Amino acid sequence: MSPERRLRVTELGLRIAVFGLGLAASALVGSDSQVRKFFSMEKKAKFTDMKVLVFFVVANAVAAGYNLLQIVRCLLGTMKGSFVFNKGFALIIFSCDQVVAYVTLSAAAAAMQSGMVGQFGQPELQWMKICNMYRSFCTQVGEGLGSALMASFGMIIISCISSFNLFRLFGSKKSSVSL
Amino acid sequence: MSPERRLRVTELGLRIAVFGLGLAASALVGSDSQVRKFFSMEKKAKFTDMKVLVFFVVANAVAAGYNLLQIVRCLLGTMKGSFVFNKGFALIIFSCDQVVAYVTLSAAAAAMQSGMVGQFGQPELQWMKICNMYRSFCTQVGEGLGSALMASFGMIIISCISSFNLFRLFGSKKSSVSL
Repeated sequence: MSPERRLRVTELGLRIAVFGLGLAASALVGSDSQVRKFFSMEKKAKFTDMKVLVFFVVANAVAAGYNLLQIVRCLLGTMKGSFVFNKGFALIIFSCDQVVAYVTLSAAAAAMQSGMVGQFGQPELQWMKICNMYRSFCTQVGEGLGSALMASFGMIIISCISSFNLFRLFGSKKSSVSL
Repeated sequence: MSPERRLRVTELGLRIAVFGLGLAASALVGSDSQVRKFFSMEKKAKFTDMKVLVFFVVANAVAAGYNLLQIVRCLLGTMKGSFVFNKGFALIIFSCDQVVAYVTLSAAAAAMQSGMVGQFGQPELQWMKICNMYRSFCTQVGEGLGSALMASFGMIIISCISSFNLFRLFGSKKSSVSL
């Protein structure tokens, strides 16, 4: 396999992984809820109680959808065999990958911060931990966070690949290369 | 001014800005404290009450220090006039810039999440807002967050420049170019 082809297969594999992980993160957190009875009162924990989890679900769903589109593009390119890669197109992919990588990582970091407070509390500020009350809710959020972190690392590698694909075009004399 | 030179001046300017902003963010949050009297009790708010602010201060201080080193490198390169830029060295700078960009953005996102809860509370979880009690403390954290966000955006542009500097070396036949 040529290095070019190996790079494209790596990219495709990573995008499939990020698609799956982003979808899983979004579905795990988005479908999460737990009802607990305190004496005669029912209290329900759901992901919309924390605004940051709403942002998290949206960001991961967008990342999954975006990577699905990119998977189609990668497959089309592979089927055609050769694919003219011009600077404009490479620039668009590079920019989108960068944005998706930074946004998914920010969402994961912000959600993780809330998750830590939920798990351990922040006693100095009287923010009490809630995970002792909503054990299964928190476990599912934790699984979602794990998926999202792996998806973010995948996106970071993908954005390195797409910046390689873009900027190497500036070193050569040719304005387009055929992959 | 040649495009090469313009790119280097832009990089130097951005690094100086990120150095200043990172230092300001770190100093603003790290020196922040406020004492309030509740009847006969004194309560002190300080940045170590929130673990995420400790991570924030460290991340921004490291980003400032790292950019100070890079400023020295840029200045040495400019003074010498030409600077042999090999792949290994470009790869190290690229990797460090990527790490610093992702870490500072994550720190800013996580701290912002805690800042939002401090400002608006999260009533569903009984996490009460604290910024009505510690007004000046919160204002100073907010200023630190603003600086850190600007520093992160600067780092994102810097990491685009350093990926350009690295990956264009792969397009050309020469293994090193003189800037």
